[in-house]
Amino acid sequence: MHKGNKKIGVAIAGLGTVGVGVIKILEEHKALLADRSGVTLEIVAVSARERAKKRGVNLTNYSWCDNAVDMASLDTVGVVVELIGGSDGPAYALAKETLKRGKHFITANKALIATHGTELALLAEENGGILRFEAAVAGGIPIIKVLSEGLVANRVSGLYGILNGTCNYILTRMEREGLNFDVILKDAQEIGYAEADPTFDIDGIDTAHKTVILAAIAFGCKPDLDNISIDGIRNISSIDIEYARELGYRIKLLGVARQTENGIEQRVHPCMVAINSPIADIHEAINAVVVECDYVGQTVYEGPGAGEGPTASAVVADLLDVARGSATPAFGVLATKLKTPVPMPYSEQKGRFYIRLRVEDQPGVIADITAVLRDEDVSIDSFLQRGEASAGGVYVVFTTHRALESAMKKTIVKLQELPFVLEIPAMLSIEHL
Amino acid sequence: MHKGNKKIGVAIAGLGTVGVGVIKILEEHKALLADRSGVTLEIVAVSARERAKKRGVNLTNYSWCDNAVDMASLDTVGVVVELIGGSDGPAYALAKETLKRGKHFITANKALIATHGTELALLAEENGGILRFEAAVAGGIPIIKVLSEGLVANRVSGLYGILNGTCNYILTRMEREGLNFDVILKDAQEIGYAEADPTFDIDGIDTAHKTVILAAIAFGCKPDLDNISIDGIRNISSIDIEYARELGYRIKLLGVARQTENGIEQRVHPCMVAINSPIADIHEAINAVVVECDYVGQTVYEGPGAGEGPTASAVVADLLDVARGSATPAFGVLATKLKTPVPMPYSEQKGRFYIRLRVEDQPGVIADITAVLRDEDVSIDSFLQRGEASAGGVYVVFTTHRALESAMKKTIVKLQELPFVLEIPAMLSIEHL
Repeated sequence: MHKGNKKIGVAIAGLGTVGVGVIKILEEHKALLADRSGVTLEIVAVSARERAKKRGVNLTNYSWCDNAVDMASLDTVGVVVELIGGSDGPAYALAKETLKRGKHFITANKALIATHGTELALLAEENGGILRFEAAVAGGIPIIKVLSEGLVANRVSGLYGILNGTCNYILTRMEREGLNFDVILKDAQEIGYAEADPTFDIDGIDTAHKTVILAAIAFGCKPDLDNISIDGIRNISSIDIEYARELGYRIKLLGVARQTENGIEQRVHPCMVAINSPIADIHEAINAVVVECDYVGQTVYEGPGAGEGPTASAVVADLLDVARGSATPAFGVLATKLKTPVPMPYSEQKGRFYIRLRVEDQPGVIADITAVLRDEDVSIDSFLQRGEASAGGVYVVFTTHRALESAMKKTIVKLQELPFVLEIPAMLSIEHL
Repeated sequence: MHKGNKKIGVAIAGLGTVGVGVIKILEEHKALLADRSGVTLEIVAVSARERAKKRGVNLTNYSWCDNAVDMASLDTVGVVVELIGGSDGPAYALAKETLKRGKHFITANKALIATHGTELALLAEENGGILRFEAAVAGGIPIIKVLSEGLVANRVSGLYGILNGTCNYILTRMEREGLNFDVILKDAQEIGYAEADPTFDIDGIDTAHKTVILAAIAFGCKPDLDNISIDGIRNISSIDIEYARELGYRIKLLGVARQTENGIEQRVHPCMVAINSPIADIHEAINAVVVECDYVGQTVYEGPGAGEGPTASAVVADLLDVARGSATPAFGVLATKLKTPVPMPYSEQKGRFYIRLRVEDQPGVIADITAVLRDEDVSIDSFLQRGEASAGGVYVVFTTHRALESAMKKTIVKLQELPFVLEIPAMLSIEHL
């Protein structure tokens, strides 16, 4: 079963926190990992932008490559770990060069896999290499292994998750402290929980990359970044968080993927989730994924979604998969068998919704609002009118039964045109899973 | 990577709900599973006690064996699925016979693996077969794969879980309905949530089998059923559930395994878990496992712990591991490298505790109780005296700071001897994880 004292040479491209974490694990757990895999993983080469930078690990035993792509051609290298980032550029070049040579390629790069995953999986299979990207989604939670191996007996009907720690951290603090998005974002940036340019996180793009990867594995289709609707958390106000609480919900940024009769639905958006749902209590930078399957039913996976230790843990798990010679295809089925996903048409998309309007406090307001809803065939579930808004007027809040999203969009436009409506209505999906 | 249109012949021993579930999945998902593994899993033989029994699946295409052990020697059989149960007898005989022949063996049998796991893993390795038992612990949650592959980069410091659906179902209903154990057990038996002889479940033995298996994989040691303290839920009263709630806890039956400087600690017992802990909200027959690791930190896994679909899902995941030729050893390291576990000495075991006394309502009671605690060096965290007991007297309830378990046992004996103490004190551990 094990291959005695075999060795595999490891090259690491990118020496940020995760790269350093990988080096630490491979050094500290060298004997343990050899016991577990029957193979010694030996770092032979490293590469990063700045050679001189202090990183807290000793690199003198490893070959230094100024150009990461050069590592793929070193005879001593059997597997390349890519931690550079970015969907194209050196990460993509390194991936192709490594896989073309029949070597193994491990990455934490969700943008790369969401964009070029099919091509890279094909390259791996054609040339006999292993492609792995456990660290690309949900950090330390082994969700990719769970989907492609643990739940492999099942047809997955859908999954959803809190996949971005920065957004969940901001939403958690907004709820706890009652402060607005901008204030918390600024603070999160100062203490290192949000990037200087937070666009990828807070506008939902990072979550979209991850959702697309999970959907590909769950449904056996090519990662499809062209057919995912994406909305971030910039427009979430503390007023909505407060109303959510009052209605028995919390607001979370979710990545959602569903296999329906009408095709695959992929969405990233802030959602109201019921307070008793398995992920309402996922706070701060923790990630969680809920998977719905035909035989096993619902299973839930929670853990740290980012950071040196958790992400490096996922990278090293992939290295052990390589060491053990895993035969699981990168996306759970051979890349040649990945289906081209049929996206669910927008006209079919349905949901439940929360709407908040600021209106002038005058007679006839409710009658006019409900008339708009009736005309668009949107049925009301609950209705609140309470409290003067600090900006003037009063808030009217309601939730709907299941309705077509297209009808809701029309409803919002019509509501906005009512003379007594004082600002753009706030609308959020209600997840009922 | 995949081996084209290879076939593996599957034999199934035991045709209860799980066996029937396995047949259903293999039939319904035949093409899907072949796509995922590159191998066709073909049922060739089945065995059960009663041939004539109606099972809702068509068995006419499969060879029938009156004696399960005979299946191991059929040339058409490459992998045997054992769903007979029991630590010895035919299940054990079948396991040995299958593995000696170099064939693969999959089981859902926790008693068998907790008792004979090391021997069977050795047999598998000596003869080139694969041994798998994902379904033996936590049903549909792929916790064994998570520990032996997903978290493989880590040293596990400890884990704990709700591993028995029957106990969790009973405790959930006791809490919701305020009724006593006996009443709920009887009802659970009537609706099929508890066995006619519920001993294995409610006395913690089933949880102990599962805990021992998880500990073996987590710590790389032989399963050690001789060194686990076991206590079930028979003595949990609705009064304690009520006090737990008041103190901010829920009572759950936990399997706990910890690697400490003084050895491995393995315990099964009802515990108070903080209401905001990740598993306090695991209700009814759901299972959950919390794993603490050095690099990834804390991760949590939740899902259905039993039943036809979930358990069969885990069995078929093991079959796919076999089909893909997984090289992961059964317990995460080669059986020849499994350590003999050093149990933590009882004298070192510490914890926090909850004590409930029924006492006569008279002066000096508190002074005498607290004197006993002081003499045993047990420090009080919180103290409640409230409410007349229906059986007479009043309840005095307190929780302790961390204390030696041996000191607590002495404390309980001394408290019981106090003249005003009216019944055997109730004591529960408080899990603070």
